[in-house]
Amino acid sequence: MDIGGTKLAAGVVDEAGRVWHAERLPTPSGDAEAVWASLARVIERVRVAAAAVGAPVPRGVGVGCGGPMRWPDGVVSPLNIGGWRAFPLRERLTELLPGEPVRVHNDAIAFAAGEHWRGAGRGRHNLLGIVVSTGVGGGLVVRDRIVDGTTGNAGHIGHVVVDPAGPSCACGGRGCLEAIASGPATVAWARSNGWRAGQSDGLSLVADARAGHPVALAALARAGEALGVAIASAAALCDLQLIVIGGGLAAAGELLFGPLRKALARHARLSFTAGVPVMAAAGGEHAGLVGAAALVLAGDRYWSAG
Amino acid sequence: MDIGGTKLAAGVVDEAGRVWHAERLPTPSGDAEAVWASLARVIERVRVAAAAVGAPVPRGVGVGCGGPMRWPDGVVSPLNIGGWRAFPLRERLTELLPGEPVRVHNDAIAFAAGEHWRGAGRGRHNLLGIVVSTGVGGGLVVRDRIVDGTTGNAGHIGHVVVDPAGPSCACGGRGCLEAIASGPATVAWARSNGWRAGQSDGLSLVADARAGHPVALAALARAGEALGVAIASAAALCDLQLIVIGGGLAAAGELLFGPLRKALARHARLSFTAGVPVMAAAGGEHAGLVGAAALVLAGDRYWSAG
Repeated sequence: MDIGGTKLAAGVVDEAGRVWHAERLPTPSGDAEAVWASLARVIERVRVAAAAVGAPVPRGVGVGCGGPMRWPDGVVSPLNIGGWRAFPLRERLTELLPGEPVRVHNDAIAFAAGEHWRGAGRGRHNLLGIVVSTGVGGGLVVRDRIVDGTTGNAGHIGHVVVDPAGPSCACGGRGCLEAIASGPATVAWARSNGWRAGQSDGLSLVADARAGHPVALAALARAGEALGVAIASAAALCDLQLIVIGGGLAAAGELLFGPLRKALARHARLSFTAGVPVMAAAGGEHAGLVGAAALVLAGDRYWSAG
Repeated sequence: MDIGGTKLAAGVVDEAGRVWHAERLPTPSGDAEAVWASLARVIERVRVAAAAVGAPVPRGVGVGCGGPMRWPDGVVSPLNIGGWRAFPLRERLTELLPGEPVRVHNDAIAFAAGEHWRGAGRGRHNLLGIVVSTGVGGGLVVRDRIVDGTTGNAGHIGHVVVDPAGPSCACGGRGCLEAIASGPATVAWARSNGWRAGQSDGLSLVADARAGHPVALAALARAGEALGVAIASAAALCDLQLIVIGGGLAAAGELLFGPLRKALARHARLSFTAGVPVMAAAGGEHAGLVGAAALVLAGDRYWSAG
């Protein structure tokens, strides 16, 4: 399952990382039980449809969910799902699907696990996965295993400081990557610099940039540069082999990646950081589901909790 | 052994992290063989003196050495030892001390290992050790093990970007922590702001700051603030339990740590980063030797190479 502020998705994924069948519903804005009811509906649809196409019987339930959460308990309070505050997601899923292990982790950590397992990071030992979307999340793989950190929150590249005098961040800090390079922050910057689009979201910003709108281009460049600075810092600290980027804003392609690589080249000058490759995620729209499956199907590498 | 631009040190360290005997000589400025001859002299003195006090017979040779180096080969080119360029330190030590395993790692990584093993970080699972000295180095412990990274260079907190528009760095980048907070960078900033001391080194700067010199105080505050920003970034990325700080400039105590904690509190606002403790190293002048010993005596945690 891939659970975020925009959509609730579930699918059956096999050992090869193939998605046999997937379903999704928009995330409702209602209370805890309204969100849960939608998720249960998605799960039921997947069960029926997956059985019909002869998908393998699930050996467990992996979930990538927006943070923060109490990990590994799976008690979640996703910033972008107002109805869930300290919602016992793992417990509820265990009741609904008895007999199957349920593993809930941060959605960006699941993304990084999936890209390492069956995506752009196959065969690399140390990588950082970054999801640039409503927020900027991340997951860190060191020596072929997900780094959970002390409380299960490692990988928060979105709160690496890229400009100590920069804009204030939703976390209470200042100059975090997320405060500059998230989809909404990028759109807000474009708007305040004169960009006016009918649909003022990230997708229309990317479309306008493709059409050559100078403010839209500058907004994506600003986000890319902030990403490049944060990646230079992460590469120095963790001596990484690869950076994999996914999420909605990554759809901007070179309009984002070009300025990113320029900033990275300017700041990453040590022998082991210069030239660290930055790639787009291979998992496409299912990257989150494949990563969630990795928590169960390759738990030795991606699930360290009991 | 603890090998840097200022001194060559060697000692016999036991399982408890106790230093039975240690010797040191200033690092000569001569060619490769002149530096090697001094190191061999230090080693010989230690062997004689340690035997005289009944120290345990060494089971191996651990070395913390200034970087960069080819790891785990131990072919070293320390920035601050001009005479050693691609010097085969591991090979030469193996010839000199046959039959004992020789393990050479970055001196700041050895420092972090030592503080985790027998110092301020005992019992913590995830920590960052930082050495603030001629440069700013670091070592990362995740899940009770040293993180080497792809090329043995993980932990380079000194090249985390704390101000993308900041001063240029010896690495070729801009705004790295080291370019702002190293001893020489701090002294240079103080000088350019009117500080004039007879001995314009880090120690006299700290002494002047203790005596209330406003520029000396501001210089240490500037270094502390940069450290706080970099630590906030590292804590977000790695979800750390503890930061341990050593090195010459750490002798400034609260004059450095106070501004550091203020900047950290300003930028580290996530539940798992707010309040991450920052402590001074416990190892004192022998922290580097104890860390080097950890590479051998607790190799399961601190030495991942063969």
